[in-house]
Amino acid sequence: EVNNILSNIKSLTPARFLTIGYLLVISVGTFLLTLPITTVDGRGLNIVDALFTATSATAVTGLIVVDTATYLTTFGQIVVLVLIQIGGFGFMTTSTLFALLLGRKISFRERIIIREELNHFTLSGVIKLARYVIALTLGIEFTGALLLFLKFKNTLPISKAIYFSVFHAISAFCNAGFALFSNSLENFVGNYYVNIIITTLFILGGLGFAVIADLYEKRRFVTLSLNSKLVLLTTIILILIGSSGIFLLESSNQNTFGQLALEDRFISAYFQGVTPRTAGFNTIAIGDLTQGSLFLIIILMFIGASPGSTGGGLKTTTIGVLIVATYSLVIGKDDAELFRRRLSQITVYKALAVTIVSLLVIILATLILTITESFKFIEIFFETVSAYATVGLSTGITGGLSTIGRVLITIIMFTGRVGPLTLAMALGERERSNKVRYPEEKILIG
Amino acid sequence: EVNNILSNIKSLTPARFLTIGYLLVISVGTFLLTLPITTVDGRGLNIVDALFTATSATAVTGLIVVDTATYLTTFGQIVVLVLIQIGGFGFMTTSTLFALLLGRKISFRERIIIREELNHFTLSGVIKLARYVIALTLGIEFTGALLLFLKFKNTLPISKAIYFSVFHAISAFCNAGFALFSNSLENFVGNYYVNIIITTLFILGGLGFAVIADLYEKRRFVTLSLNSKLVLLTTIILILIGSSGIFLLESSNQNTFGQLALEDRFISAYFQGVTPRTAGFNTIAIGDLTQGSLFLIIILMFIGASPGSTGGGLKTTTIGVLIVATYSLVIGKDDAELFRRRLSQITVYKALAVTIVSLLVIILATLILTITESFKFIEIFFETVSAYATVGLSTGITGGLSTIGRVLITIIMFTGRVGPLTLAMALGERERSNKVRYPEEKILIG
Ligand SMILES: [K+]
Ligand SMILES: [K+]
Repeated sequence: EVNNILSNIKSLTPARFLTIGYLLVISVGTFLLTLPITTVDGRGLNIVDALFTATSATAVTGLIVVDTATYLTTFGQIVVLVLIQIGGFGFMTTSTLFALLLGRKISFRERIIIREELNHFTLSGVIKLARYVIALTLGIEFTGALLLFLKFKNTLPISKAIYFSVFHAISAFCNAGFALFSNSLENFVGNYYVNIIITTLFILGGLGFAVIADLYEKRRFVTLSLNSKLVLLTTIILILIGSSGIFLLESSNQNTFGQLALEDRFISAYFQGVTPRTAGFNTIAIGDLTQGSLFLIIILMFIGASPGSTGGGLKTTTIGVLIVATYSLVIGKDDAELFRRRLSQITVYKALAVTIVSLLVIILATLILTITESFKFIEIFFETVSAYATVGLSTGITGGLSTIGRVLITIIMFTGRVGPLTLAMALGERERSNKVRYPEEKILIG
Repeated sequence: EVNNILSNIKSLTPARFLTIGYLLVISVGTFLLTLPITTVDGRGLNIVDALFTATSATAVTGLIVVDTATYLTTFGQIVVLVLIQIGGFGFMTTSTLFALLLGRKISFRERIIIREELNHFTLSGVIKLARYVIALTLGIEFTGALLLFLKFKNTLPISKAIYFSVFHAISAFCNAGFALFSNSLENFVGNYYVNIIITTLFILGGLGFAVIADLYEKRRFVTLSLNSKLVLLTTIILILIGSSGIFLLESSNQNTFGQLALEDRFISAYFQGVTPRTAGFNTIAIGDLTQGSLFLIIILMFIGASPGSTGGGLKTTTIGVLIVATYSLVIGKDDAELFRRRLSQITVYKALAVTIVSLLVIILATLILTITESFKFIEIFFETVSAYATVGLSTGITGGLSTIGRVLITIIMFTGRVGPLTLAMALGERERSNKVRYPEEKILIG
């Protein structure tokens, strides 16, 4: 019996193994959040809200149906924090951590799964990378917490200052977006110190471990891998587009920038310009932003962070590959080329597939929510993309969602975290047995 | 001097030649629409509205800033109708028509341009196809007009009935969406006869001449070209999605289906489900539809009709190729395969490029319009996609657009008609001289 179950587990594909792993973590989290000691009112969360919150934390999304700061007890908050950290490490890296702690040998099969999890190319050095991930994560989070503590200790009691520093450092580096203030970071709107620490944490978390390792080893841009170059280039461009876009689109909005001094506008535009990818904190109420800003944020959320990172979305490289392929075609090249390297057909097709599947999920989910909910279209569209890209920003409608809406957003958060392609492949995996190559035939385009 | 100009024209690439040709037609149309005899008030249109209307007609879009029925004189309406017919034939087919009428020989160079215009693969049979296009267009339009006349003669004087029949048959087959009723076809909401004639005309027009010719010659599905099969398959699926989607999304809307009998709902769902691709007529006020229907229509408009047709949008084959490539990858194939045929890398890249360029244009235009206009986001988004895909449906904001808005929508209609890829290639064409093939390097996706 037990052997049977074990051999069933062993025969699972990596994609299915990861999907089931995340489901288990979320199940445990949901159970814990229904306990009476989880909420201040001593009742625990109902099953739908517990599932929503556990999924939001594990998927490092940050959408909330109950206020983390005032509705959950410290126990409840710590459950959320642990789920965030598990989600941030990635399920397999967490397992590796336990294995390393227990001194156990890591099997070849487990290495394959870890490789899938970290989205890395070769098995050699995967264990090294997993150790590196854990050391790096804890190191950066500790540094972040220390720097935040220097600020928080001025206004909070020492123990609370430590707790708040640790919570927000982890939540920021993991791109989780959960906060212990009811209004996210709106109290710190003009505070350069806090703004820079938080944004640096989540931008680093969103670069992806492979890129940080590559940067640390190579130091010079030209010697970096093509992947690292593309990640850095797209990240910089998106930061510039986001920040300058918000600055322009909010400049005449009396509810937001109209109330801020010029120097506060700079840091606010920067913060709101980088948080959509896919941190989820905010220093300005999202519901007060102009329609233009909301649409820009929707696009930035959809693109998201970099692969193998704590962030979500389509990923910077996906959109980068699509634009490189488009540009190459327009200037008359047959292949997609970047920095004197050629992108393979399968790379471009993969980028395409992730984008198409994601668009289909978002369109279908948005359509259903327009029926079940009675909010404005842009609010529903914003919420859907935020959930799918595991961002956590909201115009303020999350708490007002119907039960069907809550369940649907939960499913979207999970789908967005496990990755549309991983999910699609988990559902459709089969042997590559088609040795027949059909003759080519043309199709009219455009 | 003259020789110099002529040789300059001869050295133009097909894409540039077509772009300039459309600009010339629109310029003449704009001039005519500013004449006093164009409008009922005897003042003629102002330059912005004349440019808007001429572009809308030539691009067979159908968005209107002045009411065609009551604001324009019969002369003005006929200017619009001629522009629609020129747009419908396509600029080069129109030139071919004149050449044939004048008995002139058609040069090899002109055949290349015609090929580009009709989006056809080989030079052989292009002239045959052009003649076919003209005969087919006039034949179908005549039949449509005759059938409409049988209905219109019951309520209108004979001469007016003839005029209305011809105008709406041409406008429908050319997917133009201009009507001589101020409320489009809302008077005919439950009229199966008129609904079926109009929809059949614009669906035929939206299939593309090549497909109609293929169907006429081969008759059986299995013997059709891969292109024709994909066009028919996607068209049928999109008709089913559109009609059933509208039926469901409007079923509890008191402003629309709430006022209709069940049998009227069927035909209304069908009409509103097929008109987004990209006819532009409506039998229900678009502004009264639910947000869900508007979003569904936005998606359908964006996809649009089939290549080489009178319709606009991304094209059914473009989206078909992207979905085939995605599906092939998900089930574990290296190549995109359909009906036992392989799609070449360049076909998939082209489909990708058209989609990416189109998305960029629509996102940028929508962002600008959210600043310059003060309508709801979904209304602005709807209007932008409608203009780009040359659909002509509107929630009712066209007449309320600012001057900047009108000019921007004009530019979008033109861009949408000339085709984003044609435009991009016209701007970026160069010799394919890169014989160096760079080494391949991997990129992380998703
Ligand atoms: K997040
Ligand atoms: K149209």
